[in-house]
Amino acid sequence: MTQEFESSLLESAVSEISRLPGIGRKTALRLALHLLREDVATSVALGEAIINMRKGIRYCSVCHNISQTDICPVCADTRRDPSTICVVENVKDVLIFENTGSYNGRYHVLGGVISPIDGIGPDKLQIDSLIMRVATGGISEVILALGATMEGDTTDYYIYKRLEPYNVRVTQLARGVSVGNEIEYTDEITLGRSLQNRTLFSDSIKD
Amino acid sequence: MTQEFESSLLESAVSEISRLPGIGRKTALRLALHLLREDVATSVALGEAIINMRKGIRYCSVCHNISQTDICPVCADTRRDPSTICVVENVKDVLIFENTGSYNGRYHVLGGVISPIDGIGPDKLQIDSLIMRVATGGISEVILALGATMEGDTTDYYIYKRLEPYNVRVTQLARGVSVGNEIEYTDEITLGRSLQNRTLFSDSIKD
Repeated sequence: MTQEFESSLLESAVSEISRLPGIGRKTALRLALHLLREDVATSVALGEAIINMRKGIRYCSVCHNISQTDICPVCADTRRDPSTICVVENVKDVLIFENTGSYNGRYHVLGGVISPIDGIGPDKLQIDSLIMRVATGGISEVILALGATMEGDTTDYYIYKRLEPYNVRVTQLARGVSVGNEIEYTDEITLGRSLQNRTLFSDSIKD
Repeated sequence: MTQEFESSLLESAVSEISRLPGIGRKTALRLALHLLREDVATSVALGEAIINMRKGIRYCSVCHNISQTDICPVCADTRRDPSTICVVENVKDVLIFENTGSYNGRYHVLGGVISPIDGIGPDKLQIDSLIMRVATGGISEVILALGATMEGDTTDYYIYKRLEPYNVRVTQLARGVSVGNEIEYTDEITLGRSLQNRTLFSDSIKD
């Protein structure tokens, strides 16, 4: 359906919607026709929410998480441990860790991972600002919480080397069998790592 | 991810986006974060296109197709045959027939098909207004172009019976083997219909 629609308003809505990732023209048309069947208020609410979000949200000048203020609520929260930084790939990961409810430190959003194939070098990520935060002092631990992929591992190692001059504990998320997973469905590398880093059973029953 | 986000602007955008059919909260979040990475102009264009479309588009008072004017461009086009009405289920079908480039008559958008299971009776569809168009005169043919489903067939039959009192030719789209399809992948009912309604081969080579 490459032809333009009779209605220029529909055409323009469909072409804007289809610029979203993973949404083609057919889906965009389906969504537009859905909106046309709904109340005017629905479309106004959707359109305004998108515009207000983009205009109102910027990035925290400390951790680069999204924020409506210069310093994000996490960085501004004095009840949170300022000496621990959890390094994550993107904004979504911050939301995921926050939803676990088991982290009380600060974050640092890299904006990606090192990936030479995609042309992403360390200079395109917020790594310098992380080193600066550590260099400024007051940081006792940096938790590397990137994906367990080759790119994640590369980035972990790069950051680890960059942090060597500073007196800071660099840790990584535990790698092992996912909770709820059967052994037979766990890959061999993960099993190897989980065997190597086995923990005291008595520790697991303390919680 | 049922917890609300730190940012109320993000929360509100995600919840509005996830009201769209087929888009859950995870996809909505992915789309919102994509927009946050793009220029402000992208979000403004998207938001405004949606609002302007919904506010600017209404339904043609004759055929119920979407239109930016009281009478849609198809109904207003005097070069199109006013004596033929193609009855379609929805607005999307009008676009599809227009894109074939092989129809030069007018349309009538029912807004659905009769489906007792979904609680859709003839009174919920634009059937009365179709009968009225025919009753007003000047219509020589009504083409039933609904889907070849049980609901489509039911609706076809209902419209056919309602049109009996009027001197109008009621036709239906040909049912048969899809162009490009192998016989072995065509279902038996379609094959039966296509055998029954076989056409003169000499007619097919005239085009």
